[in-house]
Amino acid sequence: MYRPALVMITVLLCSSPLVNGGKVLVFPVDGSHWINMKVLIEELHSRGHEITVMRPSDTWYIKPESPHYKSITINSSAGFDEEGMELFTETMIKMRRQGASIWAHMSLQYELVGKIYHLHRQLIKMMEDIFENIKLMQSLHDAKYDVVLTDPANGGGVFLSHRLGLPLVFNVRWIVHGDGHQAIAPSPLSYIPAPGTELTDQMTFLQRVKNFLCLFLMSFYSWYVIDPNYTPFVHRYFGADVYYMELFQSADIWLMRNDFTFEFPRPTMPNIIYMSGFQCKPSKPLSKEVDDFVQSSGEHGVIVMTLGTLVAQLPEDLTKDIAAAFAELPQKVIWRHEGKRPSTLGNNTLILKWLPQNDLLGHPKTRLFVAHGGTNGIQEAIYHGVPLVGLPLMFDQPENFFRMKARGVAEVLDLATVNKDNFLAALKKVLYEPSYREKMTTLSNLQRDQPMKPLDRAMFWIEFVMKHKGAPHLRTESYKMSTIQYHSIDVVLFNDASDSKEEPLCVRPTDRPM
Amino acid sequence: MYRPALVMITVLLCSSPLVNGGKVLVFPVDGSHWINMKVLIEELHSRGHEITVMRPSDTWYIKPESPHYKSITINSSAGFDEEGMELFTETMIKMRRQGASIWAHMSLQYELVGKIYHLHRQLIKMMEDIFENIKLMQSLHDAKYDVVLTDPANGGGVFLSHRLGLPLVFNVRWIVHGDGHQAIAPSPLSYIPAPGTELTDQMTFLQRVKNFLCLFLMSFYSWYVIDPNYTPFVHRYFGADVYYMELFQSADIWLMRNDFTFEFPRPTMPNIIYMSGFQCKPSKPLSKEVDDFVQSSGEHGVIVMTLGTLVAQLPEDLTKDIAAAFAELPQKVIWRHEGKRPSTLGNNTLILKWLPQNDLLGHPKTRLFVAHGGTNGIQEAIYHGVPLVGLPLMFDQPENFFRMKARGVAEVLDLATVNKDNFLAALKKVLYEPSYREKMTTLSNLQRDQPMKPLDRAMFWIEFVMKHKGAPHLRTESYKMSTIQYHSIDVVLFNDASDSKEEPLCVRPTDRPM
Repeated sequence: MYRPALVMITVLLCSSPLVNGGKVLVFPVDGSHWINMKVLIEELHSRGHEITVMRPSDTWYIKPESPHYKSITINSSAGFDEEGMELFTETMIKMRRQGASIWAHMSLQYELVGKIYHLHRQLIKMMEDIFENIKLMQSLHDAKYDVVLTDPANGGGVFLSHRLGLPLVFNVRWIVHGDGHQAIAPSPLSYIPAPGTELTDQMTFLQRVKNFLCLFLMSFYSWYVIDPNYTPFVHRYFGADVYYMELFQSADIWLMRNDFTFEFPRPTMPNIIYMSGFQCKPSKPLSKEVDDFVQSSGEHGVIVMTLGTLVAQLPEDLTKDIAAAFAELPQKVIWRHEGKRPSTLGNNTLILKWLPQNDLLGHPKTRLFVAHGGTNGIQEAIYHGVPLVGLPLMFDQPENFFRMKARGVAEVLDLATVNKDNFLAALKKVLYEPSYREKMTTLSNLQRDQPMKPLDRAMFWIEFVMKHKGAPHLRTESYKMSTIQYHSIDVVLFNDASDSKEEPLCVRPTDRPM
Repeated sequence: MYRPALVMITVLLCSSPLVNGGKVLVFPVDGSHWINMKVLIEELHSRGHEITVMRPSDTWYIKPESPHYKSITINSSAGFDEEGMELFTETMIKMRRQGASIWAHMSLQYELVGKIYHLHRQLIKMMEDIFENIKLMQSLHDAKYDVVLTDPANGGGVFLSHRLGLPLVFNVRWIVHGDGHQAIAPSPLSYIPAPGTELTDQMTFLQRVKNFLCLFLMSFYSWYVIDPNYTPFVHRYFGADVYYMELFQSADIWLMRNDFTFEFPRPTMPNIIYMSGFQCKPSKPLSKEVDDFVQSSGEHGVIVMTLGTLVAQLPEDLTKDIAAAFAELPQKVIWRHEGKRPSTLGNNTLILKWLPQNDLLGHPKTRLFVAHGGTNGIQEAIYHGVPLVGLPLMFDQPENFFRMKARGVAEVLDLATVNKDNFLAALKKVLYEPSYREKMTTLSNLQRDQPMKPLDRAMFWIEFVMKHKGAPHLRTESYKMSTIQYHSIDVVLFNDASDSKEEPLCVRPTDRPM
């Protein structure tokens, strides 16, 4: 499986001169994760910091040249390209629509897990190449970065920060093992739904049992996909008694792409900084063509539809149904769609290959957003106060929409069963029952009413870590305890299995991080 | 024990006209708690809000007239006056100095618990008088307050907010039952020291056993002091199945007089806002007399000593030892002391009956602060970066100082054993070992480097609650679960003892608070 990869390093100096400031080493994750990271990078750059991005050579989106960052390109062949992923998504949608056998579904899921396994395997290979490249490592040392900023959906940035002895800031929603919160904040299973369960913070007994079992099943993912790749690597480079989780949990600040207009209220930690909506901004005027179309909607307003970057095409029967439903409405519709023009398309619907999502959502005539449920899109809808109809596909999308439905600001349809009638019914419900818009307006007001802008807060804490060389005073070291110690099981049983000699002494003022 | 109290209501209009803004009903706690609350009241007033303070007639500090608030005076006779408390403190110090018997100590502790019991009993009587006074309750209803702001060291404000159906904001460090965090945030006993244990977040096995036992013992306080007073009252006015804890835990925002330069890092909740240092401000110039004295210290600098508002006098032998130790130092000393002038007093020591604590701590010549360990004083010392020598007496003072010692910014002495030699040794250690000042400077930098000023943050969240009629999106409702449900004990045992019919349904979008 492993093809020896020559490390090709290209340091591209950015074209505009960098202002004197801090030095940030960014280890990003590709795809929609990069879209988020770029927002932070551009803001850091505008504040005079110098940013270096480590990019794999087979990246989908991360360009080698930018006015905002230098880049170091590492040869990589994850074999997990954008087109392959689009094809996979299309296959998945088709299978769900056509009622494929349970075996076909399982085989597809197995394929997805295999792809993720391969992705982490290739990451480890890439990290080995980086760590073994003495010249590169020396140049990274010599650059004297102030902080590593990474998305911990993979472990690359975590490894790098520890190898270089640098403070670590996460730009995080999902981690290698699942949801970001689960790894760091106490998450009582009695009211914290495990990812993917589509449960709320109020569960019946049977729902709590389901929650328990789902979290248990999630461990398999960790055992079979992550551990076989990460553990030998960590043992090799960080010591035989070191595990990935402790490297990971020692991050100084967790900039969480989340908040409590999106997440159910739950325990948190002092070093978790919520920055949901950090990418949201007021809308700009539309192009003349689009604006004319929007204005022509009159009092009925506009519906905006897009299913994200991975869904270029939908099956023809589905696009026909969607178009036919739209055609029956008095609203105007702007639909991002790349496939064949549906024969049922009404005069009220404008198809675009790309649409200015934020500017449309912020337009006063926009009444409804039909979306796939990516975090970015939902947070932008909350920011602009636009209620939703959901067609979630995969990953966290069904869960994200479930939360919006639980708040009464969305209707959600299953791709397997959606047709003209139920799609039209959902559109009409959200358009004409005032509660959806009213509740979305309330949610929007709550999201916007913050002591400081989420992006400024994120910047503050990155700069805090750079200035103070970390933020250990905000981080518990409880992750260093065993599960038995953490949950006081030994104390309850009064079973001195954990020899006190192995534990840290109580008062070691000089050791205390400040 | 209960003397029927006529409710005497005096509404005193403040002398300056109130700007149009929100209406805040404040139910404060007396003593040093009021000093804190006043800071919030004055700031709220300066922002144009109208404040009404409920004050008991036998208050120590809460004046009926103020330019910053109206007041409503309620007849009360808690019999727990300031002079009585000073006398009690003096007795306690004497007994500790003179090595009284264990029985004498226990009897004094019993007396203190009795005083606290009586205080809560009188509070309940006062609340009954308020609730039964139809005219007063009607006027409170008619006033249409936007929020109740209270210090939950007693339950008065909690009762009032629920009776009036108003949002609730806490200004909190200690609650009726102990430490503020314990009631609301998950607090694993494996690394969260129970109040009064003088343990850190890193404990040996035996220390964890101690921690467990101490928290268990603390429940007795709740069972014997709080519950007998509060439970019948709550049953009577809020329903036979309602308990104080759920009224209390439903507060919208907890403005915590704490942060992580003071507290060990630990789990928190989205509706806990840390505002440690909210009362701190830059120092103002000293009066000419004090400034001349301070300047005369030259390169040696100044030591400031005060033991808080409750300690007017110390035993003569102790003051002699303290004075003699000071006399041996080249520094100048400013000592707040009201008793007899010690015969051993050196020329370098200036005794004052009151001292401008903040202005002295902020003076560049101040080298050391000798304090009793009240939260306010310690937070001011952190703010100004002045290391400490502690002579803690009671309540949370030993614990507060223990934390400062654990951080390497203080030496602590036991009042029972302090004498000239060990006092002088502690002073010299903190004065001449650079680590104390260095670490305090680090701590000060961490405390000051915040995204916004703690007082502004507190104001933001009070105003947020006023604007949005609460902040339920930040509050878990997990407190409504039974202990067995919360800890998933029923799920682990798969024992459907908790009939699912009694539990809330999973998805109730319309019920979800936004």
